[in-house]
Amino acid sequence: MQVIEKVREMQELARQWRREGYSIGFVPTMGALHEGHLSLVREARKHHDRVVVSIFVNPLQFGPSEDYNRYPRTFEEDKALLIAEGVDVIFFPSVEDLYPQNYQTYVTLERLPEHLCGLSRPGHFRGVATVVTKLFNIVMPHEAYFGKKDYQQFRIIERMVQDLNMDLKVTPMPIVREHDGLAMSSRNRYLTPQERQKALILFRSLELASDRIQKGERDAFRLTQEIRKFIQREVSEARIDYVSFVDAKTLEDIKTLSGHVLLALAVFIGTTRLIDNREFFLED
Amino acid sequence: MQVIEKVREMQELARQWRREGYSIGFVPTMGALHEGHLSLVREARKHHDRVVVSIFVNPLQFGPSEDYNRYPRTFEEDKALLIAEGVDVIFFPSVEDLYPQNYQTYVTLERLPEHLCGLSRPGHFRGVATVVTKLFNIVMPHEAYFGKKDYQQFRIIERMVQDLNMDLKVTPMPIVREHDGLAMSSRNRYLTPQERQKALILFRSLELASDRIQKGERDAFRLTQEIRKFIQREVSEARIDYVSFVDAKTLEDIKTLSGHVLLALAVFIGTTRLIDNREFFLED
Repeated sequence: MQVIEKVREMQELARQWRREGYSIGFVPTMGALHEGHLSLVREARKHHDRVVVSIFVNPLQFGPSEDYNRYPRTFEEDKALLIAEGVDVIFFPSVEDLYPQNYQTYVTLERLPEHLCGLSRPGHFRGVATVVTKLFNIVMPHEAYFGKKDYQQFRIIERMVQDLNMDLKVTPMPIVREHDGLAMSSRNRYLTPQERQKALILFRSLELASDRIQKGERDAFRLTQEIRKFIQREVSEARIDYVSFVDAKTLEDIKTLSGHVLLALAVFIGTTRLIDNREFFLED
Repeated sequence: MQVIEKVREMQELARQWRREGYSIGFVPTMGALHEGHLSLVREARKHHDRVVVSIFVNPLQFGPSEDYNRYPRTFEEDKALLIAEGVDVIFFPSVEDLYPQNYQTYVTLERLPEHLCGLSRPGHFRGVATVVTKLFNIVMPHEAYFGKKDYQQFRIIERMVQDLNMDLKVTPMPIVREHDGLAMSSRNRYLTPQERQKALILFRSLELASDRIQKGERDAFRLTQEIRKFIQREVSEARIDYVSFVDAKTLEDIKTLSGHVLLALAVFIGTTRLIDNREFFLED
């Protein structure tokens, strides 16, 4: 396994692989890897001749009051995990190499970012779309893998690839959870043991929703209110950012649960903002 | 020679060419071809195994009060010209294929569009950057050619390619002029014979500037004022959009002519907006 830090070197290698007819699978990450990331890597390994994992904490997708500086950086552990998965290259660029002086080009979307996390994190998805475009141009993958925990991110990348005619396949993969249901996240490392316990409220909310929906509930407002009350009652320190039922494709709010629906949650536990979601496929 | 209308078909052919190891030269145009375009095509033909010319009047780069509907469409003449130049493919997509329903992704730049034409044509360069990104992803060129008559466009594409790490070379080509100095432009077709004569004022302004600079003038404001007065005196019907000396790389206004300098003009002759420019390389 090779660690490549230079954009030029990564791009030259990708170009060479393409000339030689190898297929390239790609997993973009911010490091602090967990089983969620590794599930993407394994899928890429299964389907492609060459697998690249990028590790880059992208300053462009963090707001000024967010956790860019605090975000966990665990390169040596990440590297050991990726060697064990048989990855070919870790692409580990510097901020200066990806955003040199006078950098000024951005990829933006008009509607998909105007929902869910996009509302509380202005500029976040512009940062994501821009860095992913750059990474795609550098790594030249045939297929790129994204976890559905960041569901809105997946839909935005999927749309961007289609809209800009990027010649690759975007593959979403299921959320990976701890034994007790907590969705894997690099940000779980921020949680104290007490907060870790309280963080289960997200998963428990999804379970509550599933139960109600199975019993026939189709009113999004009523169920959202029930979930909000449940969270506030069970974890007084939780601060809800959003609890939303949306159309799973457009991410627009819905009133009646029907068709392909997403329930998405963002909740602060202490100072840590956690997200989780679940898809429902309901008969119209 | 082949005319391809479908994005999917063009992309599949480009992919196949790349697999077979051919180099691809690309000239994006809006049709209504003239010798300026053809000089780009000849250069591409000289250096590449396969040459693609796209013809697409991009609605996204026209403002609501601009000439999108009126813009000349001369496909049969264009096709004959391109056959004569030995082009391999004309890519001639529809608006619906490039911007399908729910289209929402755009490429924007922060500083380069805030000068010259960008000021009087808000959104224009977002449209240009977006469509060129799409065309690059579809045609997959190794090299793309742009005329320097649209100097700001060239600088924006050059910057975008570098910022987004697109794997191709952007090559600018000199302005091609009529025998009397008028810069070739598809929009020259709008001019009446009388206007055609008056349109020479742009070239004559560049000549005036060259003369003054050769004689030692280095004050941008003074020379700009002289050119403005010259235009107004010589062609009373001319309406000046801008006469600007700018840094040729950043396109920022300059006060003193020094280094690599661009003089750029935009002038309405009747209802037709014409642009022209000249580079100067001056000792610091």
